[in-house]
Amino acid sequence: MAETPIRIGILGCANIARKVSRAMLLSPNTTISAIGSRSLEKAIAFASENHFPESTKKYGSYEAVLDDPDVDAVYVPLPTSLHLRWAVLAAEKKKHVLLEKPVALDVGELDRILEACESSGVQFMDATMWMHHPRTAKMKEILSDPHRFGQLKSVHSTFSYVGEGDFLQNDIRVNPTLDSLGVLGDAGWYSIRAILWAYDYELPKTVTAIGDPEYNESGVILSCGASLNWKDSGKVATFYCSFYTNLTMDITVLGTKGSLRVHDFVIPFNENVGPFYAVANSSWKELSLGCEPEPSEFKITTVLPQEALMVQEFGRLVQGINGGDAKPEKKWPTISRKTQAVIDAVVASIKNGFKPVEVVY
Amino acid sequence: MAETPIRIGILGCANIARKVSRAMLLSPNTTISAIGSRSLEKAIAFASENHFPESTKKYGSYEAVLDDPDVDAVYVPLPTSLHLRWAVLAAEKKKHVLLEKPVALDVGELDRILEACESSGVQFMDATMWMHHPRTAKMKEILSDPHRFGQLKSVHSTFSYVGEGDFLQNDIRVNPTLDSLGVLGDAGWYSIRAILWAYDYELPKTVTAIGDPEYNESGVILSCGASLNWKDSGKVATFYCSFYTNLTMDITVLGTKGSLRVHDFVIPFNENVGPFYAVANSSWKELSLGCEPEPSEFKITTVLPQEALMVQEFGRLVQGINGGDAKPEKKWPTISRKTQAVIDAVVASIKNGFKPVEVVY
Repeated sequence: MAETPIRIGILGCANIARKVSRAMLLSPNTTISAIGSRSLEKAIAFASENHFPESTKKYGSYEAVLDDPDVDAVYVPLPTSLHLRWAVLAAEKKKHVLLEKPVALDVGELDRILEACESSGVQFMDATMWMHHPRTAKMKEILSDPHRFGQLKSVHSTFSYVGEGDFLQNDIRVNPTLDSLGVLGDAGWYSIRAILWAYDYELPKTVTAIGDPEYNESGVILSCGASLNWKDSGKVATFYCSFYTNLTMDITVLGTKGSLRVHDFVIPFNENVGPFYAVANSSWKELSLGCEPEPSEFKITTVLPQEALMVQEFGRLVQGINGGDAKPEKKWPTISRKTQAVIDAVVASIKNGFKPVEVVY
Repeated sequence: MAETPIRIGILGCANIARKVSRAMLLSPNTTISAIGSRSLEKAIAFASENHFPESTKKYGSYEAVLDDPDVDAVYVPLPTSLHLRWAVLAAEKKKHVLLEKPVALDVGELDRILEACESSGVQFMDATMWMHHPRTAKMKEILSDPHRFGQLKSVHSTFSYVGEGDFLQNDIRVNPTLDSLGVLGDAGWYSIRAILWAYDYELPKTVTAIGDPEYNESGVILSCGASLNWKDSGKVATFYCSFYTNLTMDITVLGTKGSLRVHDFVIPFNENVGPFYAVANSSWKELSLGCEPEPSEFKITTVLPQEALMVQEFGRLVQGINGGDAKPEKKWPTISRKTQAVIDAVVASIKNGFKPVEVVY
């Protein structure tokens, strides 16, 4: 017998909420029961434009969503500086929390959110969509294979896209009072998560920012990078993120036996197929006139797009908890916190003149 | 009327000389007139195994090659620690010099080689083969196109391959008395060259080694990386080189309008075609449900392999000089020296606890 779909309330009409609300309608175990905006008219228009069910309640405040007993969980795509207030309040109202990234301005803020969730027994998950694509599991299968990959030694990841028009001055992502982490919190989040994912979430010992980041006139970071260091068996990683360079979404992972590359890890070029490239035991041809084998392309198809799979997984966990069978899954808050801890270390290293900073966790 | 082919003498029977001597036989403007080894028997066997012309003279010493008036130029694939002695002597004997990389143990040594070449009016060129593949020129054409690439902001390059068997202890590349630069001089050379090439040979202001390199028991580097910094418009680069990770030969270049990737830049998977991937003006699809366009594959064919094109270019320059029409081409010693200067800075940064080191030139 099918379980009752979980009823999600959305806080605000952020652009990303268009995509994620579509995912809620695609996911078989979720519905949108409410949307709240500071403007009721905006909430009504947003619900209409995005084909919400007739039954979705429209509110002129976020509080009203949190007070609605027909809301099981909330999706919070508000600017990062508002996460602490609204995610904590949502948890206190016993709503499960699907929180946009970056989840907080620093680990200290995130801890208050996570404590509120734990105290209320609600699920916390960040909205990092690519984690839920079946390609991600398939890539991990290869990275974990001692014959096809061996020991992981190096990861490099890039996520960049060009901030068009007045983006670099006025977009929410570069507004010092709304998203003061700039490109590091927005794009860097994904590359840091990719590095941690590849290393099975083993935190690096130190993080060293790479000079020199670029900033807008408000002092918000528009491009930066860092190296991560495990001080163990030569394991290293580097990343680069930018609002200045052409859309690039790369992970390159090198092991003692194999290597793996993906060029659209954040959002696949096409919704229903995720490609990646892997090769093992490469060697020179006679006289080094070439090398073989060439990398193979893997194409992982999915019926539901990755954001719908994310919502479905969130819904599944919430159903388990609300049905009384399960406790909140700790994996998701743990990897959010590790990702945020590395972001904090990058910020500290930049402030510290690009010196190595120990990752505090 | 075809010009007389230049007559090349080879110093030593290094493994790489098998490939490069084949290139000399493929190149229409070069012949192999002599080979010298410390063992005459080895020279004779090498000439036979590699199908040298009957006319090639075989010598039981390097000096004999340098003293042969029928030798116009020498190819020096000796261990790096021997470059200073033999390249200087070759130049003093008025032989043009095609020198294997890394060209020297440091810029100080290289300067003595370059001074000897300049003083004798002979051509100097390092044996970095991929510079001569037509793919390299085609990639540069795209990187230089303001519409297809825009302003260059970031380069990442990796060259690694697995040192099998006792390679990591006993190969010439990791012997502290023969090639003390280890993987940095061997594989790192290519990635550093790639970064400089992408940036039109504008030297970075500082180089910061990435912790922690791996070493063998003799203290020779087996894996390392660094970030390079131009302190101008956010221009950065990183590289990674290793004898521990699966064969990888990547350059990823990001510009304000385009991006470019190549996965076999050092030695193409296949001799006669060099692929690369480029894309410009990428953008999100509606609702960010994907992005477009996808990168396009470019396939640049070549009749002669890149190492034969290298030898042919060296031969062309030598013919011009020996014919009295031309002076030595300064581009080649200049970019060798810049590459070596960055290597020196990486070494200094490692010794200096991974602090930024200014690039001295």
